[in-house]
Amino acid sequence: MQQVYFDNAATTQIRDEVITAMTHVMKTSYGNASSSHSFGRTSKALIEKSRKAVASYLNVVASEIIFTSGGTEADNLILLSAVRDLKVTHIITSRIEHHAVLHTLDQLVKDYKVAVSYVDLKPNGKIDYLHLETLLKSENKTLVSLMHINNEIGNMLNMTKVSALCKANNALFHSDTVQSVGHYKMDLQDIQVDFLTAAAHKFHGPKGVGFAFIRKNSGLKPLIFGGEQERGLRAGTESVHNIVGLEVALKNAYEKLENETAYIKDLKQYFIHKIESDIPNATFNGKSGNMEKSTYTLVNVCLPIPPKKAAMLLFQLDLKGIACSKGSACQSGSNQNSHVLTEILSAEDLQKPSIRFSFSIYNTKEEIDYVVGVLKAFIN
Amino acid sequence: MQQVYFDNAATTQIRDEVITAMTHVMKTSYGNASSSHSFGRTSKALIEKSRKAVASYLNVVASEIIFTSGGTEADNLILLSAVRDLKVTHIITSRIEHHAVLHTLDQLVKDYKVAVSYVDLKPNGKIDYLHLETLLKSENKTLVSLMHINNEIGNMLNMTKVSALCKANNALFHSDTVQSVGHYKMDLQDIQVDFLTAAAHKFHGPKGVGFAFIRKNSGLKPLIFGGEQERGLRAGTESVHNIVGLEVALKNAYEKLENETAYIKDLKQYFIHKIESDIPNATFNGKSGNMEKSTYTLVNVCLPIPPKKAAMLLFQLDLKGIACSKGSACQSGSNQNSHVLTEILSAEDLQKPSIRFSFSIYNTKEEIDYVVGVLKAFIN
Ligand SMILES: Cc1ncc(COP(=O)(O)O)c(C=O)c1O
Ligand SMILES: Cc1ncc(COP(=O)(O)O)c(C=O)c1O
Repeated sequence: MQQVYFDNAATTQIRDEVITAMTHVMKTSYGNASSSHSFGRTSKALIEKSRKAVASYLNVVASEIIFTSGGTEADNLILLSAVRDLKVTHIITSRIEHHAVLHTLDQLVKDYKVAVSYVDLKPNGKIDYLHLETLLKSENKTLVSLMHINNEIGNMLNMTKVSALCKANNALFHSDTVQSVGHYKMDLQDIQVDFLTAAAHKFHGPKGVGFAFIRKNSGLKPLIFGGEQERGLRAGTESVHNIVGLEVALKNAYEKLENETAYIKDLKQYFIHKIESDIPNATFNGKSGNMEKSTYTLVNVCLPIPPKKAAMLLFQLDLKGIACSKGSACQSGSNQNSHVLTEILSAEDLQKPSIRFSFSIYNTKEEIDYVVGVLKAFIN
Repeated sequence: MQQVYFDNAATTQIRDEVITAMTHVMKTSYGNASSSHSFGRTSKALIEKSRKAVASYLNVVASEIIFTSGGTEADNLILLSAVRDLKVTHIITSRIEHHAVLHTLDQLVKDYKVAVSYVDLKPNGKIDYLHLETLLKSENKTLVSLMHINNEIGNMLNMTKVSALCKANNALFHSDTVQSVGHYKMDLQDIQVDFLTAAAHKFHGPKGVGFAFIRKNSGLKPLIFGGEQERGLRAGTESVHNIVGLEVALKNAYEKLENETAYIKDLKQYFIHKIESDIPNATFNGKSGNMEKSTYTLVNVCLPIPPKKAAMLLFQLDLKGIACSKGSACQSGSNQNSHVLTEILSAEDLQKPSIRFSFSIYNTKEEIDYVVGVLKAFIN
């Protein structure tokens, strides 16, 4: 049966070069990077080379990159320590952030004296920058946490604008960039963001490794305590093969970025056209139908299907070998509506099924023809 | 040049079978285990199979195994949540625990209302069980955190005894078993411990993955918040290849345990004899010279070398291709004495260099001859 993987925002296929590099590391460099003997130094050198490479792609210094077990851990580290150690008492975020941010904040509200404000959203999910500015006028020590690319609807934050607003109001700025690192170039000398997060598996790297960018002299302290790894900011024996895998994945992503972006953009454009011509009553959620104002990697489509029939849709797509998702992967098992769509859709549109299709270099237009064909047949 | 890896307590060489299995997973199963489509279900099935296998080796149920990014994270998860969520206000531990426990407790003392008591130690590092019993008489909600096998001196805790003491006094019991899982069989229906921790890289598995055993209905909550992975106890996209690697490593460890234990025990015995005959003034720290009362995997030798010359010892061993360590790996870069040896050695013995040699199935008696020869030559 044909298998189509259109769920690249959930996770991506690992590049062959990445697997080869990881396997090589596992076979040849098993030292503990904290050991001072030659086996240890070899592992340490691999990690520091990876750190340097990652830093160079973001135009920061190596000591500002802290490897973690993924995007979620990196978000947790930054948010917890901002409150616990930097004494942030006010956090501004939005209701359409990833749960790695929202659920962490829920816990911080319980454990510490911190207030959370949610910035207003336009019906298309756009951040209301004026409201953000108003919220920033608070007297309290403030951190803004707003994601760069929304993982469900593809909306993009104007990071330059938000970082300037934060600077002007003396607030710290954290951005969950899990969906953009490896897909967009970022020069962090231009964008004055304090903290970023990334996960290798979103850019054809391994699962279970990511990093936090933490700007120099941040004052952050660990989420995980123990040994002095990662300059004392993240204890635990480093996953050398995973870190090298992250590096190779990021290197490939950025070295091939122009061609690969063009290729994927073309797929998304084609998908939108196909939907518009074959399923004219479909609409695109958030700004995901706008090629300029959303990421080139995904679309989120609201389909003209009545609720009763809708229940069968994902099941039917799965039967046809099509992998896509209702919301973020970590909710996809549940029957609940996506918290993101719940915020931005009308009650009427929430009754209809919305599906996220997300693309990568491994996809083709033939796959799009097949998928839209299946959708069309289902609807008719 | 000859290379001898005698630092298996820091980390171990990955078994070929483990690397093969991990590479296969990375090539063929890249779905996000939280996705409900077939790609996701394949990954989910791999993880749940691993969880079941791990649970079976400890004679517990699968839901009691929570995969983490390693031993350190597992220790942090348990200790933090015991204090934050279970409202433990008194922790009994020892000053020779791993930093993953000690530094985490330091932080908990700062953040929460929790008192830490340190149980007395005998000069050989043995826990004073009578003192432990006295400490357990406290009125407060108490957790005992004592490691099974000390990673520096190889002392073994009587887990059955401590778990019985804890039960009798209504205290929770956490044991850092990072040095024993995969090296000793444990039946957790017999040993009434509440929480254990393990790291795959200590038993020929990959770095960056471990697990916590958390007994049913514990009431623990996450250290890392976000998605609903690991039954809501550990958010973040699962590192499927690493988890499968852990499973295969543990399977190999336990299926071959009898033979491999005998092989390594024989190496340790041989090493001790060699030291005793060639360097008669050497002594063994903790109980590590006692074949019955310490783990079969390591010895910690205090060498009759004057301080001035001692500074050159590790350097000289490294030059000769010998990997061993002064203390735990995460301290080995520093010039400080091991916090474990500082607790148990006399001032005089602390002046002399102590070295931990730790063995695995990949070592040989020829290597021991070589290493003891190098030591002897250095001393004379
Ligand atoms: C925007 C965003 N943030 C955070 C995460 C969490 O990353 P991970 O699951 O690798 O921890 C994800 C994906 O799962 C994401 O899409
Ligand atoms: C006893 C003990 N506990 C915890 C750890 C931490 O494990 P990891 O570094 O895999 O997080 C180690 C080894 O580093 C250890 O020996």
